[in-house]
Amino acid sequence: MAKTRIPVWRLIQSDLEAEIRAGLIGPGDQLPSENDLAERFSVNRHTVRMALANLAMLGLVRARRGRGVFVEDRPPEYRITRDSKWSEIERQMNAGPSGRVVGTEERLATTAIAGHLGLAEGTPLVMVETVRGASPSLLIYGYHLFDGARFAGIGEAVARSGSFTQALAEYGVDAFYRASTWIDCRMPRPREAEALSIPLDAPVLVMMYVDSDGEGRPLLYGNAVIPSGSLIVRIDTL
Amino acid sequence: MAKTRIPVWRLIQSDLEAEIRAGLIGPGDQLPSENDLAERFSVNRHTVRMALANLAMLGLVRARRGRGVFVEDRPPEYRITRDSKWSEIERQMNAGPSGRVVGTEERLATTAIAGHLGLAEGTPLVMVETVRGASPSLLIYGYHLFDGARFAGIGEAVARSGSFTQALAEYGVDAFYRASTWIDCRMPRPREAEALSIPLDAPVLVMMYVDSDGEGRPLLYGNAVIPSGSLIVRIDTL
Repeated sequence: MAKTRIPVWRLIQSDLEAEIRAGLIGPGDQLPSENDLAERFSVNRHTVRMALANLAMLGLVRARRGRGVFVEDRPPEYRITRDSKWSEIERQMNAGPSGRVVGTEERLATTAIAGHLGLAEGTPLVMVETVRGASPSLLIYGYHLFDGARFAGIGEAVARSGSFTQALAEYGVDAFYRASTWIDCRMPRPREAEALSIPLDAPVLVMMYVDSDGEGRPLLYGNAVIPSGSLIVRIDTL
Repeated sequence: MAKTRIPVWRLIQSDLEAEIRAGLIGPGDQLPSENDLAERFSVNRHTVRMALANLAMLGLVRARRGRGVFVEDRPPEYRITRDSKWSEIERQMNAGPSGRVVGTEERLATTAIAGHLGLAEGTPLVMVETVRGASPSLLIYGYHLFDGARFAGIGEAVARSGSFTQALAEYGVDAFYRASTWIDCRMPRPREAEALSIPLDAPVLVMMYVDSDGEGRPLLYGNAVIPSGSLIVRIDTL
């Protein structure tokens, strides 16, 4: 595989990041001093400072003048239940509908997506691409696919209200539920990184999901692209 | 933030990868030809070939001589339920207990981890670090934290049997259940990348979880580090 060179400060960053995200260094805890970290990783203080500056950019730590570097609170949780929807997150954060449509295009259903939507392979679909934000530090990029015949023009409806919940209501859908969710991660594509204001070398969590109506009939297949560390997905099973 | 330069082929890779992982180009589908892709991205064919070679290394596509490049099947799903445990994955893949202990150390419970385990902050914990594999293409790196007093020596028990399920049985725990799961992603730390045979610039999915006994008392707090694309986490809510 083609290699890209990884700077040493990034290796230190990933090591500290793993401990912070695992909670092994918890919110409010102080990191070891620059000197101690330099010794532990056998590097100079400049390298340690680069790693710490990047952890701060990711919102994981904050320097307090004259006192040291401390771990920040964890990001908000997004709980996966049958009622999971973005408008719930907006409500929790006291934000209004925030959807901005960045594109609408026609796609033909692949076998996989046709299966999710209960349609025949090759059925024309409408794909609505959005950027949504519940707060300045919580932006997500989204791809939403619908049966093109039943939901013709839904891109314009979302653009008007900023909300899929409100747009679906215009098509007679007054309730919908999360049926299944799949979670994966990858690097961002260029237009996602630009819209989310993240670097191209910071990973994103991808939540793929099918929402259904009250009778369990699939309505939409969506993909939410979430910058690493801005939201933690949570599932309770007991 | 310090920038690392991203090669053009990687941008093309991330663009195609997003479409493949979303199912917009589905398993079995043929990618556009090298010439068509070179035109679409305004680059030369060499750059397209670098992107395709890396998609192949990630297991997302395969070239068939003289026919073109085709999308591979999706990775196996890991369903989050109260019965989620690694031994279930091993059973599904007809593999035996595969846990290899790479380290055991003492840690003191941070507020966050003490909360997960129902212990007081500062309680001595034992952390067992493992590499487990259900197949050659499905390796995970793990951190497992236990109450150090109750589970003294559990690292050795895991090393003997290769299985947390069997090790817990030695401590009188004959059943345990997944209580909560949190999902996040990040870049791998150096020792994870080495153990999982992945490059340092390929992201990992991190599954943090609490397992409890039949009465709902927390037993362990674990972190599973999963190479991007080797397993898709699934949650059914309807």
